[in-house]
Amino acid sequence: MKNRFSKYLPVLFWYKSYNKQSFSNDMIAALIVTIMLIPQSLAYALLAGLPPEAGLYASIVPIILYSIFGTSNALAVGPVAVVSLMTAAALGNIVQQGSVGYATAALSLAGLSGVILLMMGFFRLGFLANFLSHPVIAGFITASGIIIAVSQLKHIFGIDAYGHNLWDLIVSLVWNFPQTNIFTLVIGMTAVLFLFWVRKNLKTLLGRVGVNPWVSDLVTKVGPVTVVVVSTVSVWGFDLSDQGVKIVGDVPQSLPPFTLPDFSVSLLQELFIPALLISVIGFVESISVAQTLAAKKRQRIDPDQELIGLGAANIGAAMTGGFPVTGGFSRSVVNFDAGAETPAAGAFTAIGLAIAALALTPLIYYLPKAILAATIIVAVLGLVDFSILKRSWNYSKVDFIAVAATILLTLIFGVELGVTIGVGISVALFLYKTSRPHIAEVGLIAGTEHFRNVKRHKVYTDPLVLTLRVDESLYFANARFLENVIYDRVALDCPVKHVILQCSAINEIDFSALESLESINEHLNDLEIKLHLSEVKGPVMDRLRQASLLDELTGQVFLSQYDGFKKLTSISGSTR
Amino acid sequence: MKNRFSKYLPVLFWYKSYNKQSFSNDMIAALIVTIMLIPQSLAYALLAGLPPEAGLYASIVPIILYSIFGTSNALAVGPVAVVSLMTAAALGNIVQQGSVGYATAALSLAGLSGVILLMMGFFRLGFLANFLSHPVIAGFITASGIIIAVSQLKHIFGIDAYGHNLWDLIVSLVWNFPQTNIFTLVIGMTAVLFLFWVRKNLKTLLGRVGVNPWVSDLVTKVGPVTVVVVSTVSVWGFDLSDQGVKIVGDVPQSLPPFTLPDFSVSLLQELFIPALLISVIGFVESISVAQTLAAKKRQRIDPDQELIGLGAANIGAAMTGGFPVTGGFSRSVVNFDAGAETPAAGAFTAIGLAIAALALTPLIYYLPKAILAATIIVAVLGLVDFSILKRSWNYSKVDFIAVAATILLTLIFGVELGVTIGVGISVALFLYKTSRPHIAEVGLIAGTEHFRNVKRHKVYTDPLVLTLRVDESLYFANARFLENVIYDRVALDCPVKHVILQCSAINEIDFSALESLESINEHLNDLEIKLHLSEVKGPVMDRLRQASLLDELTGQVFLSQYDGFKKLTSISGSTR
Repeated sequence: MKNRFSKYLPVLFWYKSYNKQSFSNDMIAALIVTIMLIPQSLAYALLAGLPPEAGLYASIVPIILYSIFGTSNALAVGPVAVVSLMTAAALGNIVQQGSVGYATAALSLAGLSGVILLMMGFFRLGFLANFLSHPVIAGFITASGIIIAVSQLKHIFGIDAYGHNLWDLIVSLVWNFPQTNIFTLVIGMTAVLFLFWVRKNLKTLLGRVGVNPWVSDLVTKVGPVTVVVVSTVSVWGFDLSDQGVKIVGDVPQSLPPFTLPDFSVSLLQELFIPALLISVIGFVESISVAQTLAAKKRQRIDPDQELIGLGAANIGAAMTGGFPVTGGFSRSVVNFDAGAETPAAGAFTAIGLAIAALALTPLIYYLPKAILAATIIVAVLGLVDFSILKRSWNYSKVDFIAVAATILLTLIFGVELGVTIGVGISVALFLYKTSRPHIAEVGLIAGTEHFRNVKRHKVYTDPLVLTLRVDESLYFANARFLENVIYDRVALDCPVKHVILQCSAINEIDFSALESLESINEHLNDLEIKLHLSEVKGPVMDRLRQASLLDELTGQVFLSQYDGFKKLTSISGSTR
Repeated sequence: MKNRFSKYLPVLFWYKSYNKQSFSNDMIAALIVTIMLIPQSLAYALLAGLPPEAGLYASIVPIILYSIFGTSNALAVGPVAVVSLMTAAALGNIVQQGSVGYATAALSLAGLSGVILLMMGFFRLGFLANFLSHPVIAGFITASGIIIAVSQLKHIFGIDAYGHNLWDLIVSLVWNFPQTNIFTLVIGMTAVLFLFWVRKNLKTLLGRVGVNPWVSDLVTKVGPVTVVVVSTVSVWGFDLSDQGVKIVGDVPQSLPPFTLPDFSVSLLQELFIPALLISVIGFVESISVAQTLAAKKRQRIDPDQELIGLGAANIGAAMTGGFPVTGGFSRSVVNFDAGAETPAAGAFTAIGLAIAALALTPLIYYLPKAILAATIIVAVLGLVDFSILKRSWNYSKVDFIAVAATILLTLIFGVELGVTIGVGISVALFLYKTSRPHIAEVGLIAGTEHFRNVKRHKVYTDPLVLTLRVDESLYFANARFLENVIYDRVALDCPVKHVILQCSAINEIDFSALESLESINEHLNDLEIKLHLSEVKGPVMDRLRQASLLDELTGQVFLSQYDGFKKLTSISGSTR
C-alpha cells in the first residue's frame, strides 16, 4: 500500500537525503529564479489577458504542488509564453477580455486542463503527446512566437489591437496606428533594443573587460529587472502616466487568494478542446525541458508521473487565482544552471514570489505596460526558428510539408486550428507513406548469398521465380497495394511459376494483410503459381502459426532467401 | 493525344478484338443476369425507400456507362444491398420517405457520389479506400446485413417500422407487431424458407438425381424468379391484395426517364459526407469483386480507372431516375460464371432490363412486397459472417477490437457512424501499435555472427556495450519512446560506454526521429557514452547523409552488427 502511494508522491523519495548542502544550493537557485520570474510572471499574465497579479499567483502554489508530485529536480513550473497565448485565444472566443467572467474562465481552463493532465497520468496516456511530431511542434512554436511578438506591439505603440491570428492583428495595428503614444513608443522601443543588446552582447562585453563569468551571467539575467526599475522610476519621476503612458497601476497586496473555478457544463463544453490542446502542448514543452535537464545528470523522468505533477500544478493554479501553467524552458534552465538540486528549490522560489506578491506590488504601480511587452517580445523572438524549414527540406520533403503547413496554418488561423491541423497532416502523411511501401524485385548477386534490387544491381534472376522484398510492415493501408503489385507483375510476366516474398523487413502482418496474403495465395494458385515466404521474423511467424495461411500456402516458408531461391531454381531447372 | 484520351476509355482497347464468339458468350451471360436482376433490382429500390422502377432504371444506363469506362470484363454494376441501405439512411435524415423530394434527393446523392468517384479517379486517390481495413469492412458488412434483414421484416409481417439502427427497428417492429397481416406473413415466410432451401439444398438434390450440373446451377439461380411468378399469380388469383397483402402496384411502362438531380448548395452540404462514405464503400466492394474475378483470368484492374467507371455509372444513375450504384458481388459472379467475356455483356444486360422496364412491368402489379423483402433477406444473410470475430481474435486482439467495435457501433448507431468510427479506431490502433515498437536488447550467439534478444536466447554480451534492435521504422510517434528506453537503460546501468542501435528493421527514419537520434547522441555524449549505428539500410543511409547526424555521431556506423560488436568489445577490452 505504502509503495503504491509513494509512487504518486516522489517527494517521499528525495526528502530523506535532503541536507544542508542541498538546502543552500536550492536557496541560491531560488533567489535567482525569483528575481527573473517577477517581471516574467507579470508579463505573461498581460499576454493571457489577465491582471498582472494573476501571473504571480500562477507561479506560487503550482510550483509547490509540482515539487511534491513532479519527478524533475530542475523544472520550474509557471506561466509560459505559448500557453499564455493559447489561454488568451481560448478565452477570447468566449468572454470579453477584462470582464470578471474572463478571470473566472481562466480558472476553469486551468482546472479543466489539470483534470485532463491527471486523467492522462492515471491512465498512462502520456504517449499521446508523441503524436505532436517535431516538425509540428517546431512550426507551431515558431508561428506562436511571431503571433505573440506582434500581439505585444500594441503595448509598445500604446494603442489597441485585437485578434488571435497574424492577419487580424496586423490589420488592427495598422488601423489604430494614428493613435500611437509617442512617450510609450520611446519607452517600449528603448526597452526592446536594450534587452536585445543585453541578451546578445552584454555577456561578451563583460567577459572582455575581465568580469568573472558567473557575475556577468548573473548581470545578464537581471537585465530585465534593471529595465523594470529604471522605467518605473522614470515614469514616476516625469509624470509620464499623465502623458498617456499606460501603467500597471494598483495591484492588490495579497497572498494568492482562494478561488473556485466556474464548472458550469456549458463553459466546460466550450473549454474542453482548448484545455486538451493546452494540456498536451504544455506537457510536450515541459517534458522536453525536464528530459533534457535530467539526462545531463543521468536522472530519470517518468512521463506519466510528470502528467500528474503538471495536473496538480494546474489545479493549484485554478484554486489560487492563476491560469494554465506548465514547465517553462528559460526558467528551468536558469534554475538548473543556478544549481537547483531538488524540487525544494521550486518551493523556495514560491516563497520568494509570495513575499513579492505580499509586499512589493506597490513598487510596480508606475511600471509601464510597454516594458512588460518588451520583455515578452525579446523572450519569444528567441523561440522563432525558421532554420527548421531548411533542415526539414534537406532531409525529407514530407516533413517539410508538415512544418510549413503548421507555420502557415497557425499564422493564418491561430494556435488551436494550426496545431490541430498540423497533427492531422503529419498523421495523414505518415499513413500515406506507409500505404505505398517500397517493394523491390530482387535477384542474387553472383558468388554471394545476398539478394539486391534488380534495378540497382547486376543480379541473377530466374524467369520462373519472382522474388519481391517489401520494405515495410504489412497492414491494412498497404495490403491491397501489395496485391496490386503482385497481380500486375504476374499478369505481365506469364512464365512465372513461383513468387517468393522476402519478409526480412516485415515487422508485423496485421489481420487485413493476412487476408490479403491468403487471397494472393489463392489467386496465384488459380494461375498455377506457387507463393513462398522467406526470412519471416520470429514474432511474425509466431502469429502466422495461429492462422490458416501456413496450412493453405501453396509454397514453402524458407529460413533464408538463398535457400529458397536455390531450391526453387533447381526444381524449376528439372521441369524446364 | 490519342493515347491519353484512350487511357480514360478502355472500350477503345477491347472493341477491336470483339468477334462472333465473344458476342455469343456475352449474350448468354446477359440473358442469365437479366433474369436474376429483375427481382433483385426491384427489391433494392424498396430497400432504398424508392419506387420499384428506380431499381430497374439504376441498372440500365449505369451498366452501359461502366462498360465504356470500366476495366473489369465481368463486373455487373447496379443497386447493391449495402449501398441501398446507406442511401436510405442518408436520405431518411433529410427528407420524408415517399415524398417527391426523396426521389430527387436520391438522384442528387447518386450524382454527388459520381462526381466524388470521378474526382478520386482523376486525382488517383484510389489508395484512400485502403484505409478501410479488412476487419472494418467485414464488421461493417456483417452488421449492415443484420440491419437490412431486420429492416425487411416489416414487409414480411405487413406492418410499419422505421429506423436506421438495430434498436430503433426492433422497438418499432415489436410496437407494431399486433397489426401483423397473416396472409402477408404466410407468403413472406414461405418465400424466405423456400429461397433458403433453393440456395442451400436444391443444387445438391438436383445433382443427386442426375441433373446436368450446368442446368441445376441455372435452376438454382432462377429460383427467385419462380417465387416471383408463383406469388404474383397467387395474389392475383385469390384476390389477396383485398386481404391487406401489400403489392407492388402500378409501375410505369417506360424506358429510364431523363432526370435532373437537385444540386442546391444546402442539399449538397447535407449529402456530402453520406455520398463520400457511399462512394468509398461502394468502390471497395466493387474493386474487391473486380480484382477477384480478374485475377482468375490473369487480367488487370486499374483501380483509378475503376473509380472513373463507377463515377460515370453513378452520374448516369442520377440522370436517369436511379440511385447510387456500384459493382455487386452476386451479379458479377453470375456474369463471370455464365461466361461474360467483355464489358459488352453488361450492355446486353442493360438492353434486357430496358425491355423489362418497357414491357413487363404490368406483369408485376400483383407482386407482393413481402416477396421482394424475402429476396433481400436471403441475399443479405449470406453476407453475415461472425466467423471474422473468432478468426481475428485468434490472430490478433487489436484486429479483433476493430471488428467488434465496428459491428457494435454499426448496429447501435447505424451505418454511417459505424463505418466512420471503425476507420478511426483501426487507424488509431495502428498508430498506437507503431508508437510502442518492440525494442530488444541483443547479444551475440556464441560461435556465430548472429545477434538475438537477450531475454529469449543464451547470448554473449559485454557490460560496456549495449546493443538495442528496434523492430519498427522510427517516426514521430515512437521517436520519444526510443529516447525514453535508452535513457532509462543507461540511467540504470552505469558502466555502459557504447550504445549500438542495430537498424536492420528500420525502413525509415523521419525528421522527428532524426532529431531524437541527434538528441540521444548529444545526451549520451554528456554521459561519455558513444552512440553507434549498425546495419543501416541503403535508402535510410542515403537520407541520413543529407543531415548532420553522421558528422556529429560520437561513434561509428558499422556495416554489420558483428563487425561493430567485435571492434567495440576489443576496444573496451584494452581500456578495462
